[in-house]
Amino acid sequence: MRAEIVAVGTELLLGQIANTNARWMSEELAAIGVDVFHHQVVGDNLERIVEAIGMAASRADVVVVTGGLGPTQDDITRDALARFLGVPMERYPEIEDLLREKFRAFGRREMPESNLRQADVPVGARTIVPQRGTAPGLVAEVDGTTIYAVPGVPEEMVEMMEGTILPELSAMSPGTVVRSKILRAAGIGESALAERVADLFEASTNPTIAFLARGIEGLSVRLTAKAATPEEARALIEPEERKLRETLGDLVFAVDDETMESVVLDLLRERGLTLAVAESLTGGLVAARLVNAPGTSSVLRGAVVSYMTEVKRSLLGVRAEAVVSEECAREMATAVRKLVDADVGISVTGVAGPEEQEGKPAGTVFFGLAVGDEPVEAMGTRLPGQRDQVRQFATISLLNLLRLKLLSLS
Amino acid sequence: MRAEIVAVGTELLLGQIANTNARWMSEELAAIGVDVFHHQVVGDNLERIVEAIGMAASRADVVVVTGGLGPTQDDITRDALARFLGVPMERYPEIEDLLREKFRAFGRREMPESNLRQADVPVGARTIVPQRGTAPGLVAEVDGTTIYAVPGVPEEMVEMMEGTILPELSAMSPGTVVRSKILRAAGIGESALAERVADLFEASTNPTIAFLARGIEGLSVRLTAKAATPEEARALIEPEERKLRETLGDLVFAVDDETMESVVLDLLRERGLTLAVAESLTGGLVAARLVNAPGTSSVLRGAVVSYMTEVKRSLLGVRAEAVVSEECAREMATAVRKLVDADVGISVTGVAGPEEQEGKPAGTVFFGLAVGDEPVEAMGTRLPGQRDQVRQFATISLLNLLRLKLLSLS
Repeated sequence: MRAEIVAVGTELLLGQIANTNARWMSEELAAIGVDVFHHQVVGDNLERIVEAIGMAASRADVVVVTGGLGPTQDDITRDALARFLGVPMERYPEIEDLLREKFRAFGRREMPESNLRQADVPVGARTIVPQRGTAPGLVAEVDGTTIYAVPGVPEEMVEMMEGTILPELSAMSPGTVVRSKILRAAGIGESALAERVADLFEASTNPTIAFLARGIEGLSVRLTAKAATPEEARALIEPEERKLRETLGDLVFAVDDETMESVVLDLLRERGLTLAVAESLTGGLVAARLVNAPGTSSVLRGAVVSYMTEVKRSLLGVRAEAVVSEECAREMATAVRKLVDADVGISVTGVAGPEEQEGKPAGTVFFGLAVGDEPVEAMGTRLPGQRDQVRQFATISLLNLLRLKLLSLS
Repeated sequence: MRAEIVAVGTELLLGQIANTNARWMSEELAAIGVDVFHHQVVGDNLERIVEAIGMAASRADVVVVTGGLGPTQDDITRDALARFLGVPMERYPEIEDLLREKFRAFGRREMPESNLRQADVPVGARTIVPQRGTAPGLVAEVDGTTIYAVPGVPEEMVEMMEGTILPELSAMSPGTVVRSKILRAAGIGESALAERVADLFEASTNPTIAFLARGIEGLSVRLTAKAATPEEARALIEPEERKLRETLGDLVFAVDDETMESVVLDLLRERGLTLAVAESLTGGLVAARLVNAPGTSSVLRGAVVSYMTEVKRSLLGVRAEAVVSEECAREMATAVRKLVDADVGISVTGVAGPEEQEGKPAGTVFFGLAVGDEPVEAMGTRLPGQRDQVRQFATISLLNLLRLKLLSLS
């Protein structure tokens, strides 16, 4: 099955944003064995959108159009699709009801009439009901080609791809499935990782092994198998995954979409431990990441962002003279654990940069770990990059240290 | 002058990378007044590259092809261009010399013969001599259309665009520059914004007005003017910007790349005020955003993430029975302000969801503002979306409330 992606939006042609939707969609389509031979991008211009859809429909079995479905005057993908199909537009009452209901739920007063444009649908098209946003997706069939139109807002596009389009396409092309599994590793450099798994990499055919550098979020190794069924694909992956895990040990922190924070929260929950966080240079990033993960409520008790030295002293009672020090990290972890009455306290202090502090260069970071009544641990490191990268690296590094510590507890 | 970008590379169609070259090229072309109406992406397939170049040449004055000029077997843009032009390939001795010389300079032993593919040029084409890389760019003219081909490696593409292509195009279309200004608005829905500026939108020609939905980060209105000089373009934008600002008032929070947090920090700094943050459902997001902005050190004193009710009581001394309440927000703002000795305390408490809390539905959020010795303010709202959206909306809403409060201070 061959698919083509048409992205609509003058902002793409002006270079204000990159076409990340096409990237994501292509990756997902490839994963279910659908070939993508072309991407097109056109602006918010009726004739050119109609032409682009026509071109795509002439050479692909499936066309996915993204963008131009919103409520404003320059959202004209609906009209272009109707023009291409040669049908008029019709207001779908069930979509109108949905829009009014969403507006009420959002707590806004009165819905502007222009919003109802989103209830106008080319006659005969199916709609995909939106969860997050207000613009419905559209589905039309013409001469054996299926045309999908989804919003350009990435979250809304992803919702419709995952909820409707990818499952429909999978069902239409049985017989070849592609399954991937991603192992995520932290605490090792890209070339060191590549060397460790070089033999496995050389020998890999089905599944194939690929490296995906993910920068700050760690490195990933992807295993991709093709087979007739998902079960067969998984069975091909399983022995290779085992070999990889043997090679990499506890460098592997997560699988597929798992995140460092979800893994850490699971480990805490399994051990019945609650958590407190004291942050300096990361300014709330560590806590914010933990709160992103589901099920954090029973684990994370609270956090203190002691950005200024005075606040470290007054609120956390830090007495260490240097605040960029192991001693300070140790005091912060101990204090925050007591302050919010948690089982585990973690801390990070350091120099985000660009200026040095207390004679220590940008990137100097110290971490603290206070677990129950065990002796408080602290360690320092030097992280690379600009200010924001140092803060991101510090965040993931602290969570990884906590992960390794929790694994070492019985 | 109309240009079209053709990106070549199977990795783009597999979704392994985003088409960031097209983004960058489009932005640069727009800035010199060249219109881009289409992007195309094709894989490393001779027929499809020839077709794509043909399509682009049929509707544009300038075609820029990027990718497929390297030394490997799947680099076939050279061959596709020759096929499209209907000319044979010829080895250019001066490029061959250049390749050998570069190889020596790189300190490599012997140049693989395959590297010489890069010296093969469609007969009659000009070359762009590479500085960083080894692949020369190509320039051909056919029926009044100029076709450029540059490497896909971003640095090499940029080098040839900046060194050769953009200057040539500027010289071909003197006297047109394009300048944009983006006004960012918060606290208003997309359709309501569109209605408010509908008249301006309808009447707009030069500058044009466009809406850019940015979801949680607020909405943007972009003014784009074409003129002979940057000064004239700015002069065209100025009166329209004034009208927009009159219509939108203090809904406009930022211009171009400014962020909500940088604006808030500037307002605090101008007024000589320091800040404290108490967060519940946002779990550190508010503080983390503020820390992202430059110059935060002199303003943000500290933050408390009181995720659990017990911590709100023990650390912030909250006495309100309901923690999802105006009263609690007021107490949190007052307490954190005192706790870290700041001039201004802000707070947010509420229900991220998906479950309700204290009988209040997901999305119910209360904000508190404690400024100096003024009476503490609090207000509630109901935010839309899933858990993570509620938290993001709550973060930006709290910062926007603080912005409006600071504007109201003399």
